[in-house]
Amino acid sequence: MALIVQKYGGTSMGSPERIREVAKRIAHYHSQGHQLIVVPSAMSGETNRLLGLAKQLNAEPDGRELDVIAATGEQVSVGLLALAIQNLGIKAKSYTGWQVKVLTDSAFTKARILSIDDKNIRKDLAEGNVVVVAGFQGIDEHGNITTLGRGGSDTTGVAMAAALKADECQIFTDVDGVYTTDPRVVPSARKLDQITFEEMFELASQGSKVLQIRSVEFAGKYKVKLRVLSSFTEFDSQDRGTLITYEEDENMEQAIISGIAFNRDEAKLTVAGVPDRPGIAFSILGPIAEANIDIDVIIQNTSFEGLTDFSFTVHRNDYAKALAILNDKVKPLINARSVAGDNKIAKISLVGIGMRSHVGIAAKMFETLAHENVNIQMISTSEIKTSVVVDEKYMELAVRALHTAFELDKVPV
Amino acid sequence: MALIVQKYGGTSMGSPERIREVAKRIAHYHSQGHQLIVVPSAMSGETNRLLGLAKQLNAEPDGRELDVIAATGEQVSVGLLALAIQNLGIKAKSYTGWQVKVLTDSAFTKARILSIDDKNIRKDLAEGNVVVVAGFQGIDEHGNITTLGRGGSDTTGVAMAAALKADECQIFTDVDGVYTTDPRVVPSARKLDQITFEEMFELASQGSKVLQIRSVEFAGKYKVKLRVLSSFTEFDSQDRGTLITYEEDENMEQAIISGIAFNRDEAKLTVAGVPDRPGIAFSILGPIAEANIDIDVIIQNTSFEGLTDFSFTVHRNDYAKALAILNDKVKPLINARSVAGDNKIAKISLVGIGMRSHVGIAAKMFETLAHENVNIQMISTSEIKTSVVVDEKYMELAVRALHTAFELDKVPV
Repeated sequence: MALIVQKYGGTSMGSPERIREVAKRIAHYHSQGHQLIVVPSAMSGETNRLLGLAKQLNAEPDGRELDVIAATGEQVSVGLLALAIQNLGIKAKSYTGWQVKVLTDSAFTKARILSIDDKNIRKDLAEGNVVVVAGFQGIDEHGNITTLGRGGSDTTGVAMAAALKADECQIFTDVDGVYTTDPRVVPSARKLDQITFEEMFELASQGSKVLQIRSVEFAGKYKVKLRVLSSFTEFDSQDRGTLITYEEDENMEQAIISGIAFNRDEAKLTVAGVPDRPGIAFSILGPIAEANIDIDVIIQNTSFEGLTDFSFTVHRNDYAKALAILNDKVKPLINARSVAGDNKIAKISLVGIGMRSHVGIAAKMFETLAHENVNIQMISTSEIKTSVVVDEKYMELAVRALHTAFELDKVPV
Repeated sequence: MALIVQKYGGTSMGSPERIREVAKRIAHYHSQGHQLIVVPSAMSGETNRLLGLAKQLNAEPDGRELDVIAATGEQVSVGLLALAIQNLGIKAKSYTGWQVKVLTDSAFTKARILSIDDKNIRKDLAEGNVVVVAGFQGIDEHGNITTLGRGGSDTTGVAMAAALKADECQIFTDVDGVYTTDPRVVPSARKLDQITFEEMFELASQGSKVLQIRSVEFAGKYKVKLRVLSSFTEFDSQDRGTLITYEEDENMEQAIISGIAFNRDEAKLTVAGVPDRPGIAFSILGPIAEANIDIDVIIQNTSFEGLTDFSFTVHRNDYAKALAILNDKVKPLINARSVAGDNKIAKISLVGIGMRSHVGIAAKMFETLAHENVNIQMISTSEIKTSVVVDEKYMELAVRALHTAFELDKVPV
């Protein structure tokens, strides 16, 4: 018998029919003798509907009132799910964030959880209840309703698991686990049985959008065993999804490369012929940061004859704004030779904890891409990730070639 | 400067456009220096939508979970209304029932208010806020969300006014006051400037559906000045709606008759040739009550040769059931001569506090109806009400004749 937290996303809760399916899944786990805390999101579309109403009444809505409104989506979900579970003859009891209580700071619309009171929930579990807790919401020290921001139900699930020292936190979503890469691009992509938090973090932030990043950080911090499962596949008690582990506790051999992330959300900017002197990076990136533009990859080559080229990437939506800043403000100020940009790029990243102890990963990556005649425009590496920027038209080709070269379609021995 | 509680119904809150109109009305009162506590209902249709979802998941839903779900309707309303008021540059703050807190008993879906904590609200009012409080909901001593049952927002408004000793509780609805009778039947029906609680109670329970009966009782008990106004008419600061008073405080002369209520929701049943002996009424009505059928008017004539006729009315929906009970169970048991029924009847009631001190009201009523050749089938009287049952085809004729005869279209001197 285990204590399991299960989180179900908005599409899993999308209709009375879907909610009945979720209840059946819960009933199965309950019949196996597990204690269950279930955290549902709002029914899909509901949060947008509510925030849309709010925007119609006030273009710059007060955060406190927005949270009062938005929190109702999950409140409806916990009531409906509790009724659906009770309908199967199982005791169930719902909790809003304030009823738990999930204490947060007062940063409306993006609050952070400070503590969770597990007293009543433990009592209900001991009495045989499935406990249904509203995700995404809490209460601050002044008694105001707060929300954790978009995707916050994942965070609630992980936080509940941490507070109650649950054996596992299962995140049910519309994918059945974490794959070596997007199966729509590489049909032979393989579901990973497990992946480390750090790899997951890199894969998630790179575009394998399975889990909210903050919940992964949170799970890592509190050492919560996180498992990603699908609530859309036919129920199969053998399906174990993907377990997200934290490195220190895992003795088993890790694959060198866990997966390949990619995206075409970025654009590249280059300031060429820049005098190589202290403070030059700040002269270029300062005005960009001031305009609230996030910067991802930054590259600066060794200088030649006192001049260097400076490149970086930004989100594609910020491309025009960033280009204008470089041309109008930066170029004249630092006396650069030229400013250039390209918003038809893709970033591809190999992710793997094994990279730390294995050499030659980058070399093999570059060799594979060279073999396919894919020109590499930028390179960036971190401890568990090697990223390249290429022309976006080569993206699928490059991802498939790398997936084969690193044998990601084969189960590691 | 007064402290005013304003309650806005579901149709007043029916859309973002309507909510903006409500906010403008509130802004007007606020600009006159009044302190305002506003109690909105859920947007029209929302409570039914939510309860419909619940019923789809559980045919016999648990009351606790129903209340969790239903309470969100008003929670959305307070947030939206606060945003709309803020959008006009006025400080506003929303409260759910538990935030206030409105303490109730634990009778889910029909809870009763036990107490209201006014501390935070008084503080917010003093700081210049319009305070927006969710109607229809509260919290029990165990921290569960409760609702007061349908129409409960009226009760919340009155209870807030009582707890804060407000100068007035204004109920905004889609009618602009209480009329002498339904203007759709009598075009010359006149809006009453004031009416007593008792008259209002009789008029409301008889079918002049303006206010929820419980809120009127509640207002009477706590001596809250209640005023009915329309939120649908063009704003007119001279419009004072109808003030609902409690008799003891009013020195002014009351009109003898305040209004005429009528309905065709009832059906008549007669058991004829009944032996006139103790216990006979219970023998007839016991089986009806056992079947959960409510009985309204009851008439038993003086007996003739040891036999009497016994008549009563029930809701028209219960007619067939009641008739079957009388024929199958009651008639053989008490050896009655015959059982008869009529579901084509209407009940018309003259209501007026002045009836207590004026004789001849009933006589004038009967004379008026006789003059129009309307046959009276049953008569029932109480201290401030005289009701007759007539063939339903004469209902409009009878109401119009009585309205004229009692000069209800004229302002009393």
